[in-house]
Amino acid sequence: MPQPLTFEITNQSQEHAGRTGVVTTPHGSFQTPAFMPVGTRGSVKGLTPQQVRATGSEIILNNAYHLMLRPGDTQIAELGGVHKFMQWNRPILTDSGGYQAWSMADINQVDEDGVTFKSIIDGSMIRLTPERSIEIQNNLGADIIMAFDDCPSSVEPQTQNLARRRHALTSRDGVMTASEHELRLLQSLDRTARWLDRCKKSHHRQDEQSLFGIVQGGTNLDLRERSVEQVCNIELPGYAIGGVAVGESPEKIQEVVKFTANLLPAQKPRYLMGVGYERDLVSAVASGMDMFDCVLPTRNGRNGHAFTRNGQLHIRNACFKADTRVLEEGCTCATCASGHSRAYLRHLYMSKEMLSGILVSIHNIHHFQSLMIDIRLAIRDNSWSALPNHWPVLQDS
Amino acid sequence: MPQPLTFEITNQSQEHAGRTGVVTTPHGSFQTPAFMPVGTRGSVKGLTPQQVRATGSEIILNNAYHLMLRPGDTQIAELGGVHKFMQWNRPILTDSGGYQAWSMADINQVDEDGVTFKSIIDGSMIRLTPERSIEIQNNLGADIIMAFDDCPSSVEPQTQNLARRRHALTSRDGVMTASEHELRLLQSLDRTARWLDRCKKSHHRQDEQSLFGIVQGGTNLDLRERSVEQVCNIELPGYAIGGVAVGESPEKIQEVVKFTANLLPAQKPRYLMGVGYERDLVSAVASGMDMFDCVLPTRNGRNGHAFTRNGQLHIRNACFKADTRVLEEGCTCATCASGHSRAYLRHLYMSKEMLSGILVSIHNIHHFQSLMIDIRLAIRDNSWSALPNHWPVLQDS
Repeated sequence: MPQPLTFEITNQSQEHAGRTGVVTTPHGSFQTPAFMPVGTRGSVKGLTPQQVRATGSEIILNNAYHLMLRPGDTQIAELGGVHKFMQWNRPILTDSGGYQAWSMADINQVDEDGVTFKSIIDGSMIRLTPERSIEIQNNLGADIIMAFDDCPSSVEPQTQNLARRRHALTSRDGVMTASEHELRLLQSLDRTARWLDRCKKSHHRQDEQSLFGIVQGGTNLDLRERSVEQVCNIELPGYAIGGVAVGESPEKIQEVVKFTANLLPAQKPRYLMGVGYERDLVSAVASGMDMFDCVLPTRNGRNGHAFTRNGQLHIRNACFKADTRVLEEGCTCATCASGHSRAYLRHLYMSKEMLSGILVSIHNIHHFQSLMIDIRLAIRDNSWSALPNHWPVLQDS
Repeated sequence: MPQPLTFEITNQSQEHAGRTGVVTTPHGSFQTPAFMPVGTRGSVKGLTPQQVRATGSEIILNNAYHLMLRPGDTQIAELGGVHKFMQWNRPILTDSGGYQAWSMADINQVDEDGVTFKSIIDGSMIRLTPERSIEIQNNLGADIIMAFDDCPSSVEPQTQNLARRRHALTSRDGVMTASEHELRLLQSLDRTARWLDRCKKSHHRQDEQSLFGIVQGGTNLDLRERSVEQVCNIELPGYAIGGVAVGESPEKIQEVVKFTANLLPAQKPRYLMGVGYERDLVSAVASGMDMFDCVLPTRNGRNGHAFTRNGQLHIRNACFKADTRVLEEGCTCATCASGHSRAYLRHLYMSKEMLSGILVSIHNIHHFQSLMIDIRLAIRDNSWSALPNHWPVLQDS
């Protein structure tokens, strides 16, 4: 069977576990460490594919969950697949819908076979199983598709902290204790492994689409280790760390990512899902992670929050009323290069003009892509410690 | 005093009163007949200046009313003027705010000196006079600025039709009868003439900005003639027809425009304000009009209505669900040239994605600019009657 994904490691840092590389897919290559803007419903909100490309983005992420609900995955298949549908003829990754089924539905129920949840569009009950998720992603036709996993919140509910009941739990290493929450996580891990096996078996486009497995386990390192063993026991083109940045502290994220990344196969791309702020990305890269996605640049862009190397600007602030400077001096994004001033962007934001979110989103995605460029150069040149000089936002406060 | 506007007529139709020309302003030239997209609050909704330019637009219109309220005309002056503010370094025209003061405010009151109305932003009472309107437009710094006129609705209120009381009214030709509404129009005409005089006298940037007078008079041709005499009695770089397309029939628009255009000076640009659909434009061009603005391409674009040479497509319609065609075959707009299908645009519209309005607006503005190109060619080549062959929407139904 031909290999639809190759990963060439071009530089290995002498300073930490970080590396640079090139991932090649049926729709072209992207450099790693890579940042993927999120095109939830088949568009990166407010941006044309040309505008997305001009930010330096080489791969984008789409949500299988949203596209399954509307316009429907078979509809997109009939239209020639998601690349043609949205006129983005470069690499695309789709998530499996597992996370959205849990996080967005009012009602959801999990059993050994799959998840049942209420459609956010018409309230009808939707059934997702590993097989159905892969079928959806086969229909969408992204270059990289994600396993459908059982992913309850990795952060222990506050209410459970108060009445934390411990259970005897047999682990590989003997007997350990676990809270009800940890017990639930353990069940979900084992189920995730069984589901991953079903995902792989039902994946009928293995010559065109690369399935990545997802390691879960919350903030419990024992559970993470168990999950890595289970997930990596199944041979796949790449592996992801899920269930991170769902409410825990930056230090906890860092600890979990460093521990888990180190256990993942070195020769395959490692994808950290849904992360994050600049220092989260830099820290994860140094731990050996290669791929990232996050809605921050576009969501914050629409809310008038502009990322800069010195931190975020809240463009609505009165101090920008007469500020003729661009968002960031020397920035080469289309917004700054066109000379759009902070005063103008503030005016557009206050006037609720669509163009505000568009121009700031362009700048923000470009900001993250510029960070990835500098990260890759710092790995190549073994100049990691100089990175915060150019990115003060990375400096310890 | 240097002349900030020149108008060169390049072709005079042998078939009708239409002509082509080039208007040159301090920020460059635009070809006539010209269509100006509307950038109400300092942006053509959802489009970057580059995207607007790529539609073929050479001049845009901004609303003095909206920019006066937010961010404020003095603010824009301090920021270097409206061209720099929105990074559109080509011709700009601002309207005077008169129309918006009447049409958008809940409360407004007119007296000999000016208009008082309630701000749509904070409810405060705003006072506009001819002098203040010109001051605002001087601050904004557009290449062409419009007179502040008294413009009550030109369409007679339905309720007044029922109890139509006639008044004796002395006109130049002797005694004629008029309804209360016509009497009000007559008063507003005379006031508009007095205000135009005040506009010209208070215009302190006559070497940089060209003031256009506005002919009113509703659908009454006697009043239109009277208004032309009063307005054109004041020497100005250009003249506009206002109070058209505010509810009257296409035939009535055509009659009023044809009658009035013929009375305007031939060597100066003639601007028909707020018009309109394709056949309104074509008919007005044949009557000798040179400039047009209308919100239709962008407003309809955001509502999912795409203009084509065969009429409008309502992109939400189920028939487009699997339609892989672009909005219009052979169209060279950025949306069609990028291959965005009707099915994709429908999906974006149904998903309330910003990109829907953006992509359809781009197509729609390009549609009107393509019509203007064909109109100019048809005048040059004296092939007017062939125009509907390429634009079936112009054919009689």
